Amino acid sequence: MSDVFDKCSNWKDYRIAKATGLYPYFRVIEASHGATEVEIEGKRVIMVGSNNYLGLSSDPRVKEAAIKATEKFGTTCSGSRLLNGTLALHEELEGRLAKFLNRESAIVISTGFQTNLALASILGRHDIVFSDRANHASLVDGIRLSFATERKFRHNDMDHLEQLLSQADPGAGKIIITDGVFSMEGDVCNLPRIAELAKQYNARVMTDDAHAMGVLGDKGRGTSEYFGLEKETDLVMGTFSKSFASLGGVLAGPFDVINYIRHKSRSVIFSASMTPASIASALKALEIIEAEPQRRARLLDIAEKMHNGFRAMGFDTGVSVTPVVPVHIGDQVKCFRFWRALHEAGVFANPVIPPAVEAGHALIRTSFMATHTDAQLDRVLDTFETIGRKLGVIPETRPTVYEPVQIARPGTSVRSNKASDKWAAGSAGLLADKGGLTLDQLSRMSSREMAGKLFDAVEQLTWRAANLQAEDLRQLRAAPMKLWEKRGELPGLLLEKGANFFLRNGTDGNSAERT
Amino acid sequence: MSDVFDKCSNWKDYRIAKATGLYPYFRVIEASHGATEVEIEGKRVIMVGSNNYLGLSSDPRVKEAAIKATEKFGTTCSGSRLLNGTLALHEELEGRLAKFLNRESAIVISTGFQTNLALASILGRHDIVFSDRANHASLVDGIRLSFATERKFRHNDMDHLEQLLSQADPGAGKIIITDGVFSMEGDVCNLPRIAELAKQYNARVMTDDAHAMGVLGDKGRGTSEYFGLEKETDLVMGTFSKSFASLGGVLAGPFDVINYIRHKSRSVIFSASMTPASIASALKALEIIEAEPQRRARLLDIAEKMHNGFRAMGFDTGVSVTPVVPVHIGDQVKCFRFWRALHEAGVFANPVIPPAVEAGHALIRTSFMATHTDAQLDRVLDTFETIGRKLGVIPETRPTVYEPVQIARPGTSVRSNKASDKWAAGSAGLLADKGGLTLDQLSRMSSREMAGKLFDAVEQLTWRAANLQAEDLRQLRAAPMKLWEKRGELPGLLLEKGANFFLRNGTDGNSAERT
Repeated sequence: MSDVFDKCSNWKDYRIAKATGLYPYFRVIEASHGATEVEIEGKRVIMVGSNNYLGLSSDPRVKEAAIKATEKFGTTCSGSRLLNGTLALHEELEGRLAKFLNRESAIVISTGFQTNLALASILGRHDIVFSDRANHASLVDGIRLSFATERKFRHNDMDHLEQLLSQADPGAGKIIITDGVFSMEGDVCNLPRIAELAKQYNARVMTDDAHAMGVLGDKGRGTSEYFGLEKETDLVMGTFSKSFASLGGVLAGPFDVINYIRHKSRSVIFSASMTPASIASALKALEIIEAEPQRRARLLDIAEKMHNGFRAMGFDTGVSVTPVVPVHIGDQVKCFRFWRALHEAGVFANPVIPPAVEAGHALIRTSFMATHTDAQLDRVLDTFETIGRKLGVIPETRPTVYEPVQIARPGTSVRSNKASDKWAAGSAGLLADKGGLTLDQLSRMSSREMAGKLFDAVEQLTWRAANLQAEDLRQLRAAPMKLWEKRGELPGLLLEKGANFFLRNGTDGNSAERT
Repeated sequence: MSDVFDKCSNWKDYRIAKATGLYPYFRVIEASHGATEVEIEGKRVIMVGSNNYLGLSSDPRVKEAAIKATEKFGTTCSGSRLLNGTLALHEELEGRLAKFLNRESAIVISTGFQTNLALASILGRHDIVFSDRANHASLVDGIRLSFATERKFRHNDMDHLEQLLSQADPGAGKIIITDGVFSMEGDVCNLPRIAELAKQYNARVMTDDAHAMGVLGDKGRGTSEYFGLEKETDLVMGTFSKSFASLGGVLAGPFDVINYIRHKSRSVIFSASMTPASIASALKALEIIEAEPQRRARLLDIAEKMHNGFRAMGFDTGVSVTPVVPVHIGDQVKCFRFWRALHEAGVFANPVIPPAVEAGHALIRTSFMATHTDAQLDRVLDTFETIGRKLGVIPETRPTVYEPVQIARPGTSVRSNKASDKWAAGSAGLLADKGGLTLDQLSRMSSREMAGKLFDAVEQLTWRAANLQAEDLRQLRAAPMKLWEKRGELPGLLLEKGANFFLRNGTDGNSAERT
């Protein structure tokens, strides 16, 4: 007899990650110093793990607007937009966003996540959605909540998209949905080709410009402005938790479509509206985005500095052309160790592991703000170099030449940098294949070499432990005699940090710390 | 060849509602006077359409807390809880909510809607969810996003629930999910029986206490405290946009379950966290909820006053035992006319029509705050009486006797009031059945009687126009000769306000105002 909660009590990853000191999530920010530096465990660290691209979350003008709205309207609207939760401020923001984005109409929704869920109402049983495989989770869920058919195309693969379009029922309603800037790898969608295909196959086009609005295009209107394809893009979505210093989202497009969504979307009509403070913050941020293009220019300069800075050291920043700067690590456990070293050295960045990226393709995601100082940025680069060398991610000396980055500046239309072989292939990782313990291979190595590999393996095994442990133990017991004979030679390091922990967890799954 | 957007441009309800002056949604609040009164179109109205039960959204202490947090941490966290969006304030609120709710652990999520979506992560392919048919839309969507099997039971029908439980695979994981207080009709779930059945069939129990937290129970902990069944209720959910003067939600329960949700739920890890201001507001509201039980007592006194006030006039407030006070109207068009008259008389309440309630069961939903004054409440009652008599919802004289309401006060365990026949049956309404124009009946009436009925019919028809118009016109053309012969006798009222509008809309669907 099973229990709905079994899956929760059987889940060990968290306990193991905590026990190994490799737990990277839910770090508690105790104070903020102008958003570019924050305090964690009493220590001041540089924040390069935020989507606060224009640095407006701590802008005194934005704060002042939020405070005034709170004083005037209170701390919440206590209801949905539909019923009692519409302030004049909501309508003002919608009107100004529609104007800013060159659209007939716009709706603001309580979160960016719910903004994409709101799509479900316009996707009917006879419609087909063509969706990039790397699209944001909220788009995936929005499509799942609809009754439409979904066809996923390989990330930015226009041949695959065309193939799916050509195979679809010509009579069906069609829409192509894509992130504008992809949040993990920092490349830009191929909107020019998407627009051509949409015209050819009679499909609508929507871009999720969460990471593009306020960043791309001469006026900061996002991907479609950047490519000069605003008329060809039917719906544009953005979030306020990135450049807009707030919480919420916007969907802009034809009046009829936005109005329909306003009245029919469950994530709109059954959810309390954006708070007065959040509306006022987004309004003020929009005003600043329009008035201060120099913030966008500075942000793109910073992106260029950081990409090239990393590349000059031998790091691989992949296909990104934006202030999303992913630093390729490869192996998942090494990625966590890299993250921990950054954390200890006072740099706040985020590890990104499968399934958010392909297996063997773990990375440290950095992202930057227009308000970072050059001194802060140099400290970040120096820290990455030290750790990168120590962990063998980059060579001890800088490469003679490197391929300079291309940045998605207004007028360039660049979409991505050429992927290196390393980026494309990822790193296989010692245990990248499930069940592939390669104990035979290990037994052929020197003791020292084996200790190193085995330490990595144990760390990775403990990380993955939940479902693999019993199997792994059986495999260890059946390991080749040669390996078994060498066990006495293994350095103390392995026994101390690896095997002991592993065996303890194998026999007592509940002994790990619970914090 | 169809177009995804066709459904939007073909949707006429909105235009017709606007043109008839019966459009009740997205009313713009221009200013707030202590939350109990707001300004709309320059006019001050009494707000009885909010879920701000304890009136804390305008409490100076709550505002002050929100302002201080904005000053200290800025206007947004610019990221998810998982990565860069966890402040010490988030953890403090979670810790204090867990303690308040007597639970091992609690997680706060950006909206109440997304809090229920977060359930999807713990509902696996082999689990079965037993869900009350009247549960909130966000629970419905949370279950849809999971891979579990859903079994819906009739609203508060414990025999039906038992039947579904007994038919289910005994080996499957099971959970019963129910609203604590149902948001539209104001009754309370039958938690005592649900707890018995859960024990018997080895199922978990979750209550959505959006409308119960801060309202029910001696300490305001919600439905399970109210019934003394906290141990029997595994998960408790609440929202901050009702009693907590904020925006967001909480889910509380066993550590393992909450921790799993924290790491696995897409609506948590892919959405920006609650803003500093919203967290601080909820924290301060919690403090006040704990320190000032008199607010809860006052709220329940107000509920009793209003229920009995309405009942004494001959209104039917149905099964509600809470500060959600639905006033039964019946016919949908009459409901909109009632709403419009309230609006013009300075009372802000919300019309609730199908599919939110059963057909013929339209109602005006009122809900009250602890901070409403008796003078305000009396004005609301007087206004309802005047309009109710004018529209024939209540008789010209007050009934001799009425059944006094039972209120869900601590220690009473009442769940609902006995439904009147009217409530149970709803009002059939002139055109409640699709396609049933009853023109034969009309032709047997006097001209004056017929004019009245036909006016109602035209108003309702225009309301429903989108899909029915062509059909309706055909039916009118085929109406009995006797009716057709009487058409010259119809009062000017009908021609002026009804038929002209109807015919105009019938021939030119696009002429209606678009605002």
